[in-house]
Amino acid sequence: VKIITFLTDFGLKDGYVAQMKAVALNISNAKLVDITHEINPHNVFQGAYILRTCVPFFPQGSVHVAIIDPGVGTNRRGIVISAGKHILVGPDNGLLLPVSHYFGDFIVYKIENEKFMKSSISQTFHGRDIFSPIAAHISNGISIEEIGSRITDFVDLDFGVYERKGNIIVGKIIHIDRFGNIITNISGDIILSNFNYNNEILIYVLDKTIKVPFVSSYGFIAKGKLLATIGSGNLFEIAINQGQAARKLSVKEQNKIEIILN
Amino acid sequence: VKIITFLTDFGLKDGYVAQMKAVALNISNAKLVDITHEINPHNVFQGAYILRTCVPFFPQGSVHVAIIDPGVGTNRRGIVISAGKHILVGPDNGLLLPVSHYFGDFIVYKIENEKFMKSSISQTFHGRDIFSPIAAHISNGISIEEIGSRITDFVDLDFGVYERKGNIIVGKIIHIDRFGNIITNISGDIILSNFNYNNEILIYVLDKTIKVPFVSSYGFIAKGKLLATIGSGNLFEIAINQGQAARKLSVKEQNKIEIILN
Amino acid sequence: VKIITFLTDFGLKDGYVAQMKAVALNISNAKLVDITHEINPHNVFQGAYILRTCVPFFPQGSVHVAIIDPGVGTNRRGIVISAGKHILVGPDNGLLLPVSHYFGDFIVYKIENEKFMKSSISQTFHGRDIFSPIAAHISNGISIEEIGSRITDFVDLDFGVYERKGNIIVGKIIHIDRFGNIITNISGDIILSNFNYNNEILIYVLDKTIKVPFVSSYGFIAKGKLLATIGSGNLFEIAINQGQAARKLSVKEQNKIEIILN
Repeated sequence: VKIITFLTDFGLKDGYVAQMKAVALNISNAKLVDITHEINPHNVFQGAYILRTCVPFFPQGSVHVAIIDPGVGTNRRGIVISAGKHILVGPDNGLLLPVSHYFGDFIVYKIENEKFMKSSISQTFHGRDIFSPIAAHISNGISIEEIGSRITDFVDLDFGVYERKGNIIVGKIIHIDRFGNIITNISGDIILSNFNYNNEILIYVLDKTIKVPFVSSYGFIAKGKLLATIGSGNLFEIAINQGQAARKLSVKEQNKIEIILN
Repeated sequence: VKIITFLTDFGLKDGYVAQMKAVALNISNAKLVDITHEINPHNVFQGAYILRTCVPFFPQGSVHVAIIDPGVGTNRRGIVISAGKHILVGPDNGLLLPVSHYFGDFIVYKIENEKFMKSSISQTFHGRDIFSPIAAHISNGISIEEIGSRITDFVDLDFGVYERKGNIIVGKIIHIDRFGNIITNISGDIILSNFNYNNEILIYVLDKTIKVPFVSSYGFIAKGKLLATIGSGNLFEIAINQGQAARKLSVKEQNKIEIILN
Repeated sequence: VKIITFLTDFGLKDGYVAQMKAVALNISNAKLVDITHEINPHNVFQGAYILRTCVPFFPQGSVHVAIIDPGVGTNRRGIVISAGKHILVGPDNGLLLPVSHYFGDFIVYKIENEKFMKSSISQTFHGRDIFSPIAAHISNGISIEEIGSRITDFVDLDFGVYERKGNIIVGKIIHIDRFGNIITNISGDIILSNFNYNNEILIYVLDKTIKVPFVSSYGFIAKGKLLATIGSGNLFEIAINQGQAARKLSVKEQNKIEIILN
């Protein structure tokens, strides 16, 4: 089954997402799947994070269109990336790179061939006029080599790697989800090799030290209480059982998090 | 045509819904249909109501995944219910029960067979790792008996039944929709057997008595005015034509509503 | 490939959209595509605008259900319109007309034949009980003539035409999108025939005159600064690069916009 996914910051109240899908449906009968359209406007980092966490679960051969594109219509390039038997299509601003790095080997192509674009191209909506039709043609089986030439000077992006400094792990917050769960770039593995479930973990964040029980899931802690756990993306996270941890701690994406090892 | 529906409290800004769908698409080519992902976080009652109102409209043979799951990763069980030629998959916390009772006969199975789960299972996201792949396998035709054994000690839930006390019908608010319409658990039938359209109905709610015209639809009353009607789920509801009745009356889900019969 | 699209003001937190889709899926295996469900409640004008901007991009033969329907259950009629090899289904309140006019020739039919409706029809939800099943039957190939008879006294709606008064173009704001971009009913063509990119444009709006650089896309202007451009619908728009122009200028849909020609 052919699949094209969509991730944008377009929201769902306007017609932009529907226009992109409509254009794709003129070319391909692929199954169209929304990843999200609620990325904060122009937040490439946040879009890259969600894309990174979703793409690997889709069947190989899926084509993923991702559009967080404040530079649309300027000289920023459009790119197609082949990574891990997935195809990624979008602007050359870093958005597609974290998931590409996750897969390891990847090849980046610059979008050049107008044959696979819409016949008339607006300057403000390349998602509809360039990226979506190209994704649909690729889903139909055209070779990526026909899209354009390989490049190596693409814009890169990563979420940063946590560091170990003596008995401290220094990481940062890379996402706050709808439940207010605070997701960090600290791997679950390093936590699990230093703590047992039901231990307490000492965390330093925004000039405050908090001591939080480490559990395997939210429901092991009383409703409304802080906890630390390994989230579904195998990353260390801080949560409140049925509450909003990010609001309680007043933290934001990109804030530093330090974990004191025993 | 094979159909899998999804109802969650995950929202659409994160990647959780997409991850669930991605996992299902690795197993099945069913049509994936969203019921809603905007249930208030952890509100099992609200999710159960929306599920109850939607499932019966889908074609028989549809598989419905519903995840409002504050107890994920604890000892709460996962269940599959066969009801009215529909299959329901989700946590054993009552969420799936009101629609099951609506269908009358139903059988509940405890999820046990790991063969139909993802190979690695997180402790915080069974929607993706257990419920979605099981739904996809069932949609593909595996027998429910293969999932696990029958149980009868499942967690039950109902919306309560309105009562008749003398000349008063005592019910409660079970949902407030986006239009601010106040939907009760009082059946349209008992209202229609006691009132004619264009009568006024005396309603007692939150220590106030209001007299409201009873009409067959919103547009028969002036814009901005309160009215009573029988909603599309055949339940008694209070609304404002093109306004927000719940906000005007300051009512919430679970508030008591009394109707004084003539 | 058969396509049915949906545009409503139902939002995504209730089950109304899912119920409409469920009913369609009992009849047709068409691909179901959401245009949007986030039209402001009862805002026919806004719904008509989004419908107008999306429908033309879909493949010919698509069937489009649009429901902004404050008059549901009253004597307002239901209609089906054949326009530009697209089929539109919805209430007779103007919602379907702007896109019909866009296509030029169109024929309007009154919905009469109960054979293609649900067997039991609520008075408050014709989207589910009448419009969706009729769209599904049309998508399956029944002839529109079977739905009902032609009418010419339908409710009409347009977005108004901008006027040229001496050296002033007088138009209005017809949409404000999620990015805060201010979209007007002034065609890109008249702007392009009077201004070159990188000129400044003098705009009079809400008793204020502003001078704004005219550029081919948002990113040519510093972040946070006002600009004028031709949007992806070939309409004149005012925006802020990565900001919210409508909020900055405190404008609303329907406000007058005047452009002073050189």
